[in-house]
Amino acid sequence: MSNQRTAFFNGEFIAEENARLHISDLSIQRGYGVFDFFRVLDKVPVFMDDHIDRFFRSAAGLRLEPGIDKAGIKDIIHELIERNNIALSGIKLTLTGGYSTDGYSITAPNLFITQQLLQPRHEECVKNGIKLITHDHVRELPEIKSINYLTGMLLHEKIMQAGAADALYCRNNEVFELPRSNFFIVTRDNVIVTPSTNILRGITRQKTLELAAKHFTAKEKIITVDDIRGAKEAFCTSTSKQIMPVVQIDDMVIGDERPGEVTRELDTQLQEVINNVRRET
Amino acid sequence: MSNQRTAFFNGEFIAEENARLHISDLSIQRGYGVFDFFRVLDKVPVFMDDHIDRFFRSAAGLRLEPGIDKAGIKDIIHELIERNNIALSGIKLTLTGGYSTDGYSITAPNLFITQQLLQPRHEECVKNGIKLITHDHVRELPEIKSINYLTGMLLHEKIMQAGAADALYCRNNEVFELPRSNFFIVTRDNVIVTPSTNILRGITRQKTLELAAKHFTAKEKIITVDDIRGAKEAFCTSTSKQIMPVVQIDDMVIGDERPGEVTRELDTQLQEVINNVRRET
Repeated sequence: MSNQRTAFFNGEFIAEENARLHISDLSIQRGYGVFDFFRVLDKVPVFMDDHIDRFFRSAAGLRLEPGIDKAGIKDIIHELIERNNIALSGIKLTLTGGYSTDGYSITAPNLFITQQLLQPRHEECVKNGIKLITHDHVRELPEIKSINYLTGMLLHEKIMQAGAADALYCRNNEVFELPRSNFFIVTRDNVIVTPSTNILRGITRQKTLELAAKHFTAKEKIITVDDIRGAKEAFCTSTSKQIMPVVQIDDMVIGDERPGEVTRELDTQLQEVINNVRRET
Repeated sequence: MSNQRTAFFNGEFIAEENARLHISDLSIQRGYGVFDFFRVLDKVPVFMDDHIDRFFRSAAGLRLEPGIDKAGIKDIIHELIERNNIALSGIKLTLTGGYSTDGYSITAPNLFITQQLLQPRHEECVKNGIKLITHDHVRELPEIKSINYLTGMLLHEKIMQAGAADALYCRNNEVFELPRSNFFIVTRDNVIVTPSTNILRGITRQKTLELAAKHFTAKEKIITVDDIRGAKEAFCTSTSKQIMPVVQIDDMVIGDERPGEVTRELDTQLQEVINNVRRET
């Protein structure tokens, strides 16, 4: 918990170690809050506007009013990046239900923005692909990036026991997303497909869809477990993982159990887009 | 937020207004925590052992270790009751995922116990019964009293717009519970039925089942919307509401739209049980 970093906390820049919420805050009382998270590479925020847009959509979804506009948030972020001066980091925006006297009614939200050290993604996993286990679950209010991760966190043990890296939420033969990532398959006809419903609309998911549409055919539609069985490649996307090959799900081996060519190509192109963001800034 | 009450916070009795958690706590980061809540009448805790037992079960369900045994918790509660000296109050126990450096891994939990003023239940509602709306939802990890109330809190507006008092979670024609209460029907044969699955096992629900078994027939089983249509009475139970008659659900009128006789009798008996707790202490 102790570090030298600065955080933005309800209108002020303070030492992050002093950023505390009274226990009457509705995040603590009722798990009520939203957040967003994006990377900063050598002081350049990656896809910041998309993340801020989604943060405001999530807030509206929980009827929370950030009390500041998007330009104001961006100014704070730029100042935070200057103050902390970290080469590879993540910025996290959080908005909670506020200090409630009755423990249930929403009040003036608490807003804070922190910057944290980030490790590069595991290139070993990118090279070899990862294994998932399926889990019967649909996230509550899936389109809102709320702070609720009860099932995701409880799954950690089950994932470790299975020698897997992550879980894939599914129900009634339909698959949706991972606890913190979106899911894609590549069909034998090189069509890139990602689930359309009961998911968080990830920013990396959106960027991947745009890249896929340029070079292949991209579709958002229902994916079943049988579709995965017939797929030649699979991968997941997130801010931290970017594009991460998936080579096994439960006992199902995907393709030849190695990261596929289409997945690799999309990842290369995504790195190019991110490099362009850095060059253009 | 500001008040003169004392709270127990991680091993110490402190002014409640100073009880703050660092933002790295997993309740704030991931909505990860459990709680329990019971009433105190003239310094006498009502059904405290049942609530503490459930608090420990909820904690175990989220793999959280309170770091104190049940007798220790009881001693703290008694001391808190002496220090605050409130005639009608509620005691809330909360255990969170702790201060996490990576925002995801469970660490040493934070434990706090607060005492709050409680209003008597609305006798107008007890006299006239309340109206509910149905809402398609199953609580996540329903048997664990977690802090997650996203759907319940968002429903507030919809409930108000419908001129109702609360919501009844249901799915595929099956009914489960209210956001913070259990649900019962009384059949035309005077059988008292409450849903058996996808619910929190409420303490007032359990006490009601025990009373019902003494004087009527009591059953825990699946209840469908059609069962409600055929019922002559309905009610909900919770620590705050105790036994509260339900007279309408969406457009369905229950019985003759007035609190039923069986509901009234159970409520009278429950009050008697509570009075005995007070006398015996």
